[in-house]
Amino acid sequence: MAHALALAARGLGNTWPNPAVGCVILAGGAETGGPDRGRIVGRGFTQPGGRPHAERLALDMAGAAARGGTAYVTLEPCAHHGKTPPCAEALIAAGVARVVTALTDPDPRVAGKGHAMLRAAGIAVTEGVMEDAARRLNAGFLKRVTRGLPFVTLKMAATLDGRIATASGESRWLTGSGARRAVHAMRMRHDAVMVGAGTARADDPDLTVRDIGARHQPVRIVIDSRLAHSPDSRLGRSARDVPIWMLHSPDAPAPSRAAWAATGAELIEVPAQDGRVDLRAALGALAGRGLTRVLCEGGGQLASALVGAGLVDELAVYHAGCLIGAEGAPVLGPLGIGPLADAPRPRLLDVTALGPDALTRWAF
Amino acid sequence: MAHALALAARGLGNTWPNPAVGCVILAGGAETGGPDRGRIVGRGFTQPGGRPHAERLALDMAGAAARGGTAYVTLEPCAHHGKTPPCAEALIAAGVARVVTALTDPDPRVAGKGHAMLRAAGIAVTEGVMEDAARRLNAGFLKRVTRGLPFVTLKMAATLDGRIATASGESRWLTGSGARRAVHAMRMRHDAVMVGAGTARADDPDLTVRDIGARHQPVRIVIDSRLAHSPDSRLGRSARDVPIWMLHSPDAPAPSRAAWAATGAELIEVPAQDGRVDLRAALGALAGRGLTRVLCEGGGQLASALVGAGLVDELAVYHAGCLIGAEGAPVLGPLGIGPLADAPRPRLLDVTALGPDALTRWAF
Ligand SMILES: NC(=O)c1ccc[n+]([C@@H]2O[C@H](COP(=O)([O-])OP(=O)(O)OC[C@H]3O[C@@H](n4cnc5c(N)ncnc54)[C@H](OP(=O)(O)O)[C@@H]3O)[C@@H](O)[C@H]2O)c1
Ligand SMILES: NC(=O)c1ccc[n+]([C@@H]2O[C@H](COP(=O)([O-])OP(=O)(O)OC[C@H]3O[C@@H](n4cnc5c(N)ncnc54)[C@H](OP(=O)(O)O)[C@@H]3O)[C@@H](O)[C@H]2O)c1
Repeated sequence: MAHALALAARGLGNTWPNPAVGCVILAGGAETGGPDRGRIVGRGFTQPGGRPHAERLALDMAGAAARGGTAYVTLEPCAHHGKTPPCAEALIAAGVARVVTALTDPDPRVAGKGHAMLRAAGIAVTEGVMEDAARRLNAGFLKRVTRGLPFVTLKMAATLDGRIATASGESRWLTGSGARRAVHAMRMRHDAVMVGAGTARADDPDLTVRDIGARHQPVRIVIDSRLAHSPDSRLGRSARDVPIWMLHSPDAPAPSRAAWAATGAELIEVPAQDGRVDLRAALGALAGRGLTRVLCEGGGQLASALVGAGLVDELAVYHAGCLIGAEGAPVLGPLGIGPLADAPRPRLLDVTALGPDALTRWAF
Repeated sequence: MAHALALAARGLGNTWPNPAVGCVILAGGAETGGPDRGRIVGRGFTQPGGRPHAERLALDMAGAAARGGTAYVTLEPCAHHGKTPPCAEALIAAGVARVVTALTDPDPRVAGKGHAMLRAAGIAVTEGVMEDAARRLNAGFLKRVTRGLPFVTLKMAATLDGRIATASGESRWLTGSGARRAVHAMRMRHDAVMVGAGTARADDPDLTVRDIGARHQPVRIVIDSRLAHSPDSRLGRSARDVPIWMLHSPDAPAPSRAAWAATGAELIEVPAQDGRVDLRAALGALAGRGLTRVLCEGGGQLASALVGAGLVDELAVYHAGCLIGAEGAPVLGPLGIGPLADAPRPRLLDVTALGPDALTRWAF
């Protein structure tokens, strides 16, 4: 199962709206005592766009060797006829003797039906193996299906005193190349990368994955209530190469809408709250379009609004070996916290040295 | 030598004004091929207050077994008659055949004379073994002797967004018990613990080492230009139990001086700059009294003044899994930095998980 989970992880960021699943098939031969018993004969993980499924690939690789074997799958095999026949049927047809899964698929079209179908066909089913690890891996898919929201990772890159820019706004090259590569790798493991209008305006970013042999690009998202970011920006100019979704409020002016639509960007209107995009509604709209994992890269205002609304699941802090002092721009905007007991207290996941910088990761 | 350095480290915080030295003696017997050859027969490290010296202890333990043996010493043995006879003489008298050292003692009373004395007596001397590690270990002693300043470690404990208190000033229990224990262990490895007047007033700290079986207490220091901190504070009331040094400017009022002197605290007058204690002069005064390693525990104003003046050597950041938002009090005050290229850029030493918190350490 650990092997299947590692395979599954390779699909992260690349399988939405589907979950990233891994499957490993071991040869049977208990009856025959054959030499292949326990050997890995099939392996697969969900392919870009969510198809083919992991089970299908593993079965194809195993061929006749799947008969009498055991399939380890990180998620309950699907039971419904979608664009492809259900994986539960495929496992039955291949004659596997046993199926071990980590997790029940909460998708109402599956939700136990996959396991039931396998059992009805006489297959031995073991559920819940390494369930916690599978739950963490598929947190995005699970949250989308059960709560209608994507898993949100917030990235903060700040000096040791929590600053992201000098008083005059200078902020380039705070972190080193190791941290930058790690950020690009994070982008690749997410379905989308999101920034606020302030960051789009200030940095004119292009938010693509570079320098690490990326085979796909996450969707690029800007939260820009009035579509004030220039369509002639890097994002606007590259909208036909890599998807860009502009989330705006109902009162974004018509000329801006037209100009952005002309770039090839997708415009998504979201209800406003206090004149700004309602973030819960915004994330709901993203989940509605299938996104399971969103990486927010700032800036400070959007970050604090997301944290304040309880919409952040994981926090990745890149600590740059630098001090700017209290005049600098803070990495996080106001949270409106009263007593300290009300402050969000994420739990430490891990710490890593990245060349000159440190990375700490936290779960909410 | 690694063993000798580990022994030396046990004296850190406890040997000032002397260096923390370690010594290991291996039995000789090259000539006789005896079974003891290379066996450790003596071990020692500088004792509290700096005496006895490491070599003296190791030689006493070795007794006759030192004859013909090799002494590993982390610092050049002393050559001058102080309160005790010089260690170089003691090594000669014990008949060791070889002395291996890591570092020349920059103290002008030694400065190569120890090595020369040994060689003159026919002892084989090897210098500079693991010199870098010895230099790091004795950075405090070396800085005091060569630059007239103590090694300064700055501790910052902050939320992930660089805050130390809510807008209303609440700041207790940001970090967990693991971090608190680590801070107490840090205190013990320093000769003194120092805070600014603001922290003394706000927190009424006692700055002692607790809960980790401390056998000595560092000197407690407050930078308080006008001696405004109450002599009836915890620090004032405990001044006869654990030393407290109040560093003040020439215009501290006479009644405050009298009240503080009455507590048993030591008053140290330091020149002022812009009406406040001149920090370079303050640290010079501390080095003049023998301090080699000072831990500054804040607050933000003193920390930024020290960083701004280039007086900090090492930075220990305790990252609490907590977010307070931009209304909170910053961990570091203003630095007056212009271009980002002028911002201090300490180098990452290591990262550690401490229960719910992370610790990162940096060198300037
Ligand atoms: N070091 C780093 O990691 C890093 C990362 C990112 C950014 N930055 C820096 O951060 C600065 C920009 O940060 P920022 O805080 O000014 O801008 P921001 O957080 O990127 O964007 C804030 C803007 O987002 C829009 N928005 C829409 N709905 C919102 C909502 N519900 N809550 C909050 N914002 C909402 C608002 O503009 P509308 O009302 O117009 O929609 C708001 O002004 C730049 O200087 C950039 O260089 C640094
Ligand atoms: N989380 C943590 O790790 C931590 C640690 C420590 C403190 N704190 C918090 O920090 C707050 C206090 O910080 P703070 O920044 O207000 O005070 P501070 O840095 O502790 O003390 C500043 C005071 O030190 C005196 N001082 C004398 N010479 C100075 C010089 N050259 N440069 C700077 N200061 C000099 C000044 O008072 P005079 O002019 O009167 O001498 C100045 O007002 C408290 O709320 C405390 O709880 C938190």
